[in-house]
Amino acid sequence: MQYSPFPRIKRFCIYKLVCLTIFRLSRILNNNKQINLAGRKHCYQYSAMIGKGKRDVVTEFIEGLVETYPGLQYLDGFPEVKVVLRGDVSGPTYEKVAVISGGGSGHEPAHAGFVGDGMLTAAICGDVFASPPVASILAGIRAVTGPMGCLLIVKNYTGDRLNFGLAAEEAKSEGYKVEMVIVGDDCALPPPRGIAGRRGLAGTILVHKIAGAAAASGLPLSDVAAEARHACGVVGTMGVALSVCTLPGQPKSDRLGPGKMELGLGIHGEPGAVVADIQPVDLVVSHVLNRILSSETNYVPIKRGSRVVLMINGLGGTPVMELMIAAGKAVPILQLEHGVAVVRVYTGSFMTSLDMAGFSISIMKAEQAILQRLDAATKAPHWPVGVDGEHPPAKIPVPVPPSRSAKNDEVLSRPEQLNEQGRALEVAIEAAVSAIIHLKDSLNEWDSKVGDGDCGSTMSRGATAIQQDMKKYYPLNDAAETINEIGSSIRRVMGGTSGILYDIFCKAAYARLKLNSQSDVAITPLQWADAFEGAINAVMLYGGAAAGYRTMLDALIPASTLLKQRLSGGDDPLDAFVKSADAAVAGAESTKQMEPLAGRSTYVSADMLTSVPDPGAMAAASWYRAATLALNHHNSKPPPPPPA
Amino acid sequence: MQYSPFPRIKRFCIYKLVCLTIFRLSRILNNNKQINLAGRKHCYQYSAMIGKGKRDVVTEFIEGLVETYPGLQYLDGFPEVKVVLRGDVSGPTYEKVAVISGGGSGHEPAHAGFVGDGMLTAAICGDVFASPPVASILAGIRAVTGPMGCLLIVKNYTGDRLNFGLAAEEAKSEGYKVEMVIVGDDCALPPPRGIAGRRGLAGTILVHKIAGAAAASGLPLSDVAAEARHACGVVGTMGVALSVCTLPGQPKSDRLGPGKMELGLGIHGEPGAVVADIQPVDLVVSHVLNRILSSETNYVPIKRGSRVVLMINGLGGTPVMELMIAAGKAVPILQLEHGVAVVRVYTGSFMTSLDMAGFSISIMKAEQAILQRLDAATKAPHWPVGVDGEHPPAKIPVPVPPSRSAKNDEVLSRPEQLNEQGRALEVAIEAAVSAIIHLKDSLNEWDSKVGDGDCGSTMSRGATAIQQDMKKYYPLNDAAETINEIGSSIRRVMGGTSGILYDIFCKAAYARLKLNSQSDVAITPLQWADAFEGAINAVMLYGGAAAGYRTMLDALIPASTLLKQRLSGGDDPLDAFVKSADAAVAGAESTKQMEPLAGRSTYVSADMLTSVPDPGAMAAASWYRAATLALNHHNSKPPPPPPA
Repeated sequence: MQYSPFPRIKRFCIYKLVCLTIFRLSRILNNNKQINLAGRKHCYQYSAMIGKGKRDVVTEFIEGLVETYPGLQYLDGFPEVKVVLRGDVSGPTYEKVAVISGGGSGHEPAHAGFVGDGMLTAAICGDVFASPPVASILAGIRAVTGPMGCLLIVKNYTGDRLNFGLAAEEAKSEGYKVEMVIVGDDCALPPPRGIAGRRGLAGTILVHKIAGAAAASGLPLSDVAAEARHACGVVGTMGVALSVCTLPGQPKSDRLGPGKMELGLGIHGEPGAVVADIQPVDLVVSHVLNRILSSETNYVPIKRGSRVVLMINGLGGTPVMELMIAAGKAVPILQLEHGVAVVRVYTGSFMTSLDMAGFSISIMKAEQAILQRLDAATKAPHWPVGVDGEHPPAKIPVPVPPSRSAKNDEVLSRPEQLNEQGRALEVAIEAAVSAIIHLKDSLNEWDSKVGDGDCGSTMSRGATAIQQDMKKYYPLNDAAETINEIGSSIRRVMGGTSGILYDIFCKAAYARLKLNSQSDVAITPLQWADAFEGAINAVMLYGGAAAGYRTMLDALIPASTLLKQRLSGGDDPLDAFVKSADAAVAGAESTKQMEPLAGRSTYVSADMLTSVPDPGAMAAASWYRAATLALNHHNSKPPPPPPA
Repeated sequence: MQYSPFPRIKRFCIYKLVCLTIFRLSRILNNNKQINLAGRKHCYQYSAMIGKGKRDVVTEFIEGLVETYPGLQYLDGFPEVKVVLRGDVSGPTYEKVAVISGGGSGHEPAHAGFVGDGMLTAAICGDVFASPPVASILAGIRAVTGPMGCLLIVKNYTGDRLNFGLAAEEAKSEGYKVEMVIVGDDCALPPPRGIAGRRGLAGTILVHKIAGAAAASGLPLSDVAAEARHACGVVGTMGVALSVCTLPGQPKSDRLGPGKMELGLGIHGEPGAVVADIQPVDLVVSHVLNRILSSETNYVPIKRGSRVVLMINGLGGTPVMELMIAAGKAVPILQLEHGVAVVRVYTGSFMTSLDMAGFSISIMKAEQAILQRLDAATKAPHWPVGVDGEHPPAKIPVPVPPSRSAKNDEVLSRPEQLNEQGRALEVAIEAAVSAIIHLKDSLNEWDSKVGDGDCGSTMSRGATAIQQDMKKYYPLNDAAETINEIGSSIRRVMGGTSGILYDIFCKAAYARLKLNSQSDVAITPLQWADAFEGAINAVMLYGGAAAGYRTMLDALIPASTLLKQRLSGGDDPLDAFVKSADAAVAGAESTKQMEPLAGRSTYVSADMLTSVPDPGAMAAASWYRAATLALNHHNSKPPPPPPA
């Protein structure tokens, strides 16, 4: 009577059942510090907690699931009966074939996450890695099965076959029409000689979808079962693990050493068929696909020229990015090495193994009838959306910038002849950068007391670049474009936050100057003031600082405010600029009294700070003041004679 | 010029950027065994590989993403430009506001998984944990922005603010309408004094959805931006980590010791606000909710009586089961402790941190306008479905079995007066169980050579139970119900696979007897033979064995086959039964020659096996032969006189 298919696997599972549930969440579910800190205590301590009825991860999972998805309900039979079902189906009156699946828990979102119109009608949840009891399966059958009968979709594990089988026979004796389909899509092992058969893996999810769509279309039980059985015959799966799953109350097994991976694993923590050194992902994917599509085992009837569906299934602890990378590798390998066309790709975590790191690949032959079932609408919350439809070209060209700012394509050059505004601009810029270069050591000294001591060097590097670039190619007769180029010069040589903030400053000023002026008309003082204000606002918005934060804004904001006041008040523009520069200097000096709210100065003691101004604010005041004074001086002189 | 909001965090991120990308998948992406095996080599080796252009996890992620979702495309500007966009939008002609988000990668499915009609129009992907460069952001803006303009949704990190800010200013200077909204939903830290502000976390996903739905409804940019800004003000988030994420080419940090968790972490591996001993999940959830809804910080305007939306967000390495458990805890705590009604629950991995274990909780005030945006249809593949709608009662009663088999409610009893069939049945059952009890030691002896030596004890336990139960309550005048009860007696005392298989055997026979007979009419020999055959088929189907697998089927199948032949051939039924019993014995003896294909015998040497029959088969032959002989004997005697 020793009748135990999958002997090793089965026994392995049974051992786990003794410890029941929990896994990594055990660490948070459990407040016994001794266990956590030791990390090596045996699992019976957890079992004891569970035995007291304090914790049942599966019932708690179900409670959270129905809170999340209002279309789902569960049978009020905890802890024995753990059945999730569609809220809109009542067995006696249900006019379609019910599709029921289930098995041990620990594979979420399978199976309960796939309950919904168009997929599963109910999911029977066992304890973690344990087949559900017959009474629970029978309760699920009774709850959703109407006159059309029900199809049980069962993964090929002894416990599930027997428990679902017994429940099916009991349901039949109660008058229900019941059929059962057993999924064994594993391609990792050579064809088994006897009972064991191939394990049910992630391909089961595709069978759920096909059967669910067939049932939703109104077909009778025999037809729904036939479609499901056919689907089972055209799907193959194989997994790769980079870690084992965390077992109840145990430290993570070191079965899988560093640099090793397991190929052909199951979903209950059973060892894989092969342990190998870790290889690059494309080699691994290629190997797995070769095994699934092997002409020796001939597990799936897929030949060159076939169309296929690809499923990349995460095993629980695998981030979406890694799964997508595997998907991106699998598609061209299937097309180039196997000559098959991939018409659908499902990438996600569908059939997991607690928190195991790794993935499985499933390939299903994409016959037209199957595609139609896979594409059919469903309300099952975890069935992936957006997967069907024709593929447009994957990539499209990077759009070129609008022609008027296509600087990369134009060769900029300094105009041969500067106009009045160009000359003034040159004078102002030259004065500003010279001031920064002269202030370099002081800036460094202040910064050495409140920061990392390189403010002067950084700013001076920017100033020097501006000086050189202006001679080479600044289009000085176009003030807006010149400001834009200043930003680019700064960005090219000044790293860090200050570089990008000054670039933002210039770009924001540029955008406003362009909007408000024409390139061949001189910019008015008020337009300059508006651009200045806009530039400061951009620095505030993107940088997140404001007045009083001990930054360059403490020089620039007072200057801008006063400038606008004076100009609106009808002051002489040159005078207004000079006065606003005084405000900038006063503002920079006032930073000595400010607590730091940004940057590295936040680490420095208050005493040190009160004697030192913010070097960023001092630099800003310095270049602004130099520019306005030079402009004033330039405009009070007669224009120079034209060049000889 | 030291202008560095989030100084520690920013710098932390920058250090990581040096190492770039990869994380856990590094183990599979990399075939340098030295690195793997040592496990402690520095990450520059990885960087070197990437530097050679061999690997770029983000571009490979994008390739897999567009293979999976045909509605998505990317800009052909790898490796600098990494932009995912809707395949159906072309900037110059797009008639709605484009909604663009992005930032460092490593947070998948954010942001690229949320691109789709009704949510994001494009996602700009930086390298892992690195803000995307300005050129990439600008390319994305140009690709999808039409005359209505675009909204940039940016998480509050300095790099993102500055790079998106600069791109926004450049785009404006090119004539685009651009607005930017900065999300800072972190509730872990006390209100910051200065620049830093609150980090952008998973609440950003809700802001994406609201802005995307507002844009899809055709609103102008200012209105879309206003809705997004309002949403930012009514959402709060806090995270809990059970592990740190795996950094590029480094062994997993042991920053978080065993038994510890971090509260208030960010999504870039930066340390949490607090490290604490691990607590039960309800205490952790309660603590986090208290922080988010704290009246001291007053981060979110949610009061008693408010309706709220709840998001339980996995951080990358957290299985669905754990997230659902957290969701199931959070809802009642919100309702009972905070007096708010939870009207939507989003549970899943939306904004991750590579493979970090843990979750974050976000709470958003569920104003009617916000709910409408959240419920609006979207094609973004990773936005959860099935979340809206009214909640019916979470649980419904377990259905009661149909009355005709409600054995639990009836008291079965042995009939006072047995009819002819009842007497025959009693004689056959008594003979069968006696035979098993007598064979106990031989069965154990055979089993000790090929199995675990308890076959006789197990079978004998079942036989004794049948013997006792028959006297107490078997309804012997109803043969079908009696067979059903035999199954139940066996199941009650016989564990393991053999118990459930014999129960399946009885239940399957019962179902057929019930369908084909009436309870007050004696069952015909052919009906018995049909039931016998059906029972064997059920054992084959659910158990997975067949003839020749060295199991009990090797006794039963020859018996059933011969029985049907003889009965159809017109033989005397009693004679046919006896002949079929001979076939059962011969079949059982033949197992000596069989290789084991099921059960524990598969481990035993062939030599040992050839001298020993399969004990399961011998037991089956034994009870079947005893029953048929007793029946023959019983029927050849005159009926006993009626009791005095």
